[in-house]
Amino acid sequence: MLIVGELFNTSRKIIKENVEMRNAEYIRNLAQKQVSAGADYLDVNCSDISGSELDVMKWLVENIQAAVSVSLCIDSPNPATVEIGLSMVRNGQPMVNSITAEEERYTKMLPLVIKSRAKVVALAMDDGGVPEAAKDSLRVAKDLIYKLTQSGIAKEDIYLDPLIKPIGVDDRAVLDVIDTVRSIKQEFPGVHIISALSNVSFGLPNRKVLNNAFMIQCLTVGVDAFILDPLDRVLIGNLRASQALLGQDPYCAKYLAAHRSGLYKN
Amino acid sequence: MLIVGELFNTSRKIIKENVEMRNAEYIRNLAQKQVSAGADYLDVNCSDISGSELDVMKWLVENIQAAVSVSLCIDSPNPATVEIGLSMVRNGQPMVNSITAEEERYTKMLPLVIKSRAKVVALAMDDGGVPEAAKDSLRVAKDLIYKLTQSGIAKEDIYLDPLIKPIGVDDRAVLDVIDTVRSIKQEFPGVHIISALSNVSFGLPNRKVLNNAFMIQCLTVGVDAFILDPLDRVLIGNLRASQALLGQDPYCAKYLAAHRSGLYKN
Repeated sequence: MLIVGELFNTSRKIIKENVEMRNAEYIRNLAQKQVSAGADYLDVNCSDISGSELDVMKWLVENIQAAVSVSLCIDSPNPATVEIGLSMVRNGQPMVNSITAEEERYTKMLPLVIKSRAKVVALAMDDGGVPEAAKDSLRVAKDLIYKLTQSGIAKEDIYLDPLIKPIGVDDRAVLDVIDTVRSIKQEFPGVHIISALSNVSFGLPNRKVLNNAFMIQCLTVGVDAFILDPLDRVLIGNLRASQALLGQDPYCAKYLAAHRSGLYKN
Repeated sequence: MLIVGELFNTSRKIIKENVEMRNAEYIRNLAQKQVSAGADYLDVNCSDISGSELDVMKWLVENIQAAVSVSLCIDSPNPATVEIGLSMVRNGQPMVNSITAEEERYTKMLPLVIKSRAKVVALAMDDGGVPEAAKDSLRVAKDLIYKLTQSGIAKEDIYLDPLIKPIGVDDRAVLDVIDTVRSIKQEFPGVHIISALSNVSFGLPNRKVLNNAFMIQCLTVGVDAFILDPLDRVLIGNLRASQALLGQDPYCAKYLAAHRSGLYKN
């Protein structure tokens, strides 16, 4: 199980404000909180800061690494930003978020992933965008994994993101993801599957209930990495409980430790 | 999806007390509450009332049927009690809880199920008890389903209960149930799978968190019936959310109705 903490994203208002103020203390504090709560990697995304994205990425990576020793997931569609971020990662194996089967993005991101021996999030989309039909999505995902492995990326470093759609738009969205996960795991054993949680509930009420249930469903069918908010105690509580249920937590040790730490108290 | 309301069980103290007082109003009220909350069937179990089990079953069935029009799940290891209960069911197709592969129980329950054209809960156990090993449990389950269908019971009327063990005792308990569900659904399409929820968390803290996650895991792999407390709003809320996610709720209509009814309010 790999938990990527998602909070360092300047599309979140509070992050943007603290980045603009260069509030290093806030950033360092939030890095520590995410890691204490269980994050294995911290995602860093400042791609909506136009003009100074490179500077902000450098500043964020510096300050996060001053506070915690987990590795970072450098998140940008801009290869120059990914390159500068990767060049600065000091701890462990970095992660790139993300590569796609889009011709230009693939060509520019691939050498960066190879050079830094990074893990990489692979989005199931190509130059036609995110495929509408499940069978097209699965085809794009498989082609992308095949290309990456042919280029020398280890299967264990690939984190396929099947790109969940909102169920309010497509009744079959989760069923399609489940089929994709099963199919990928069968054809490419070793490849990881990663998912974000919030898109599935877009447009519906009680989104946290839906997001939590979706996470448990994903775990049940073999998704083994999530990009999520590690400070969401209910979510992490459900994650630890689900892992214990699925035999991923010998003697329920992590579950019992989470209980003792007070995670399940209201 | 079939929801069997579990509350009419004299092993629960409050039920036993109200049964002993012959408090018909309490019983009728609780029947209405369970049905309003979504129960499709109401389980009736008074098997721990020694001496007067038959009388109590009659009294319960009478009073429940005076209050609601759903059908009943007659729950006893005692064939005479099941017979009297079945003979009184007025609404819809009755259900028997339960038959097993135990020689005597099978021989005595089968004619009752056939005569009343009932649905039947089939427990994966035989004269050796509940099998320890997953492969034995699966074999017992398959043999039992095969015998039932050979005896003329329609596959659609069989509700296999794989008998979940506590994960505190066996790390692989849920994984084994998942394997059993997949295997049964593949070999006997049409057969339903039913599960209770609370045994999985026996001996561990925060049992409701575990029971909820287990229900979502069960739904994800194709369990389509539960024996549960329909008055547990969090549980029913998670059930409706999970069904919407799994494409079992066109246009999320039931989920949205549950939301409008206030189910997700604290």
